[in-house]
Amino acid sequence: MSKVKLGIVGFGQQGGAYANFIKEGRISNMEIGAICDSDPKKQKVATDAFPEVPFYHDYIEMLESGDVDAIVTCVPHYVHPEMGIEALKRDIHALLEKPAGVYTKQVKELNAFAASKPNLTYAIMFNQRTNPLYQKVKELIDDGEIGAIRRTNWIITTWWRPQGYYDAGSWRATWDGEGGGVLVNQAPHQIDLLQWIGGMPEKVYTKAQYGYQRDIPVEDDVTTIFDYGNGATGVFITCTHDVVGTDRLEILGDKGKITVDDSKKVTIKRLNKPEQEMSDTMSMEDVKKIFQGEGPRGIYQEEVVEFESVWGGQHVAVLENFAANILEDVPLIAPGSDGIHGVELANAMHLSSWLNEEVSLPIDENKYTEELAKRRNQEKRVRG
Amino acid sequence: MSKVKLGIVGFGQQGGAYANFIKEGRISNMEIGAICDSDPKKQKVATDAFPEVPFYHDYIEMLESGDVDAIVTCVPHYVHPEMGIEALKRDIHALLEKPAGVYTKQVKELNAFAASKPNLTYAIMFNQRTNPLYQKVKELIDDGEIGAIRRTNWIITTWWRPQGYYDAGSWRATWDGEGGGVLVNQAPHQIDLLQWIGGMPEKVYTKAQYGYQRDIPVEDDVTTIFDYGNGATGVFITCTHDVVGTDRLEILGDKGKITVDDSKKVTIKRLNKPEQEMSDTMSMEDVKKIFQGEGPRGIYQEEVVEFESVWGGQHVAVLENFAANILEDVPLIAPGSDGIHGVELANAMHLSSWLNEEVSLPIDENKYTEELAKRRNQEKRVRG
Repeated sequence: MSKVKLGIVGFGQQGGAYANFIKEGRISNMEIGAICDSDPKKQKVATDAFPEVPFYHDYIEMLESGDVDAIVTCVPHYVHPEMGIEALKRDIHALLEKPAGVYTKQVKELNAFAASKPNLTYAIMFNQRTNPLYQKVKELIDDGEIGAIRRTNWIITTWWRPQGYYDAGSWRATWDGEGGGVLVNQAPHQIDLLQWIGGMPEKVYTKAQYGYQRDIPVEDDVTTIFDYGNGATGVFITCTHDVVGTDRLEILGDKGKITVDDSKKVTIKRLNKPEQEMSDTMSMEDVKKIFQGEGPRGIYQEEVVEFESVWGGQHVAVLENFAANILEDVPLIAPGSDGIHGVELANAMHLSSWLNEEVSLPIDENKYTEELAKRRNQEKRVRG
Repeated sequence: MSKVKLGIVGFGQQGGAYANFIKEGRISNMEIGAICDSDPKKQKVATDAFPEVPFYHDYIEMLESGDVDAIVTCVPHYVHPEMGIEALKRDIHALLEKPAGVYTKQVKELNAFAASKPNLTYAIMFNQRTNPLYQKVKELIDDGEIGAIRRTNWIITTWWRPQGYYDAGSWRATWDGEGGGVLVNQAPHQIDLLQWIGGMPEKVYTKAQYGYQRDIPVEDDVTTIFDYGNGATGVFITCTHDVVGTDRLEILGDKGKITVDDSKKVTIKRLNKPEQEMSDTMSMEDVKKIFQGEGPRGIYQEEVVEFESVWGGQHVAVLENFAANILEDVPLIAPGSDGIHGVELANAMHLSSWLNEEVSLPIDENKYTEELAKRRNQEKRVRG
């Protein structure tokens, strides 16, 4: 095949956007194989816009139709793993929307199944990984440019959502529909980037506020402390009620510091010598100058790199990369199996906040699903 | 009297600096009444520099000499409360160095005693409160310019200290000598400012690293989450091993946001209407634009105010204000009784990190002193 025939499952906002990207010719190695949505109202919308594309109500039927080589799952998070498995089972490649699932148990099942199908392409829509800025930051860290990490700190509150957004879909921001709020819908990108760049923590403590500034049962405000196990720590803050959102990532290493402002500007401060060496050799005279407000001078070199971001470009890049992996074995930017890390972190944050205690990774999965089930059941009772 | 005769207790770095400020005529309403230090070697240093000033080894003797109207306590933190009481007992005004003490129990005793002496001046060296920048920030918050606080976030890692600093004094950065590390020696200023501006939290969770990057038994790295009790939260981060220190305070309110960079630049973003109202009235069309990367436009007015800071000026201002309160009843910038808040917060942070659980304020004081005693005793055994 010269182009991958993509089956778009779920014709909502995201599915519609992907269909348009392909229609506009922005993805050179892909065409729309079929569109699927269980909502009867979506059929007309889809066939009006894409009259030549087959439409299915049942995704299994679509998988078995011969119309598609691959699927992308633009459906509620809970069903991502199941759909992934059903596709791979039928030798159909699978691109999962993020998050990979709601809880690690189901994602592990999918990962295990995918591992049994090594010839198929299994990827996840971590479009932010194609962002040249974060690729640069990862490269700097991997190359040891600022040495061993001592602290990470990300305030990412640019995920503002008004009440109308939540009211527009009954599944939105519910335990039963999404399995959480900002942690499972908006912030998974940064949760993935943070672990992609800085590694997984060993322990997590989270203070989350549920329905703090929005009329929703799930979290709209989260503050987390990571413990990386070697003394290094991290803070991750996100919320959906900060209309003048902050996006500021800072990573302190023993050889320097990286600061990212607004996902646009990277400031790299490389120490002339490792901090430990400075600590060991600094004279009391030098120290006195610091006390007198002069601060330490001439101790680092600063580099600033500015980036521009293009709306949608990153999604296009992931779709293109997914198809290129299918067609030509080009390495995946975001292998599907990577999706579990973000799910594990989001689960750990929820669980820590529910128990109000620090939790160790891997978390107690049964405890997590048990606590989640409580919330899903309670919500159903409330909603009648 | 036209000038307050100050007794400087402890002729180390800080005591020496205050003596020089007075000698240089920078404090118009103060003169040096006497200098006191229990270290015999300090006598020559003091009398060489200030030959006309009486020197005492014993501070009680100085208090009873008639040479001084007031004292400032530039001595180890543990003895601040005791010295305060002894001075006030003899009708000598007292200016405490920060922190007011190591644990709240002793500070409460001092506060209770001071309350029984309402005609005496009892103040604390929170020199940062005289900083026009933080006065401006407090004024903005008090005036409701950004509405009710939803989040505070202060990364204050400009307290870099090399190992040589710690090695220069055997009492430094020990449980028995100081009662802690960065929380009791360097960061009390910001801890006080944060509670002065944003109020006291109801609960505290802290992850602290002890001897992480320095060879000390106490904390050199701290991350704290505040819970203000009404859904609002805060984060406070400090350490002594970040040589390219960060100083960034952000306060989110329901009508805007204040960001302070490097204690020099204040950026105020005032929303055109309260966030809740925006959330309630924003149309889905507007929301879509936000999704497409345009972000919310024209929703706030920005104001930037820059400040310059003068080394030493703030200490001078507190000394001047202290004397002016004694002489002319000018209101105190930092009443001594305010010192307890910072001590309570530092105690809560220690206790939370020791127990690895969130603690509620007021903390269990007995538990705190018990846990502190363990660490003091252990340290003595290690040091022999």
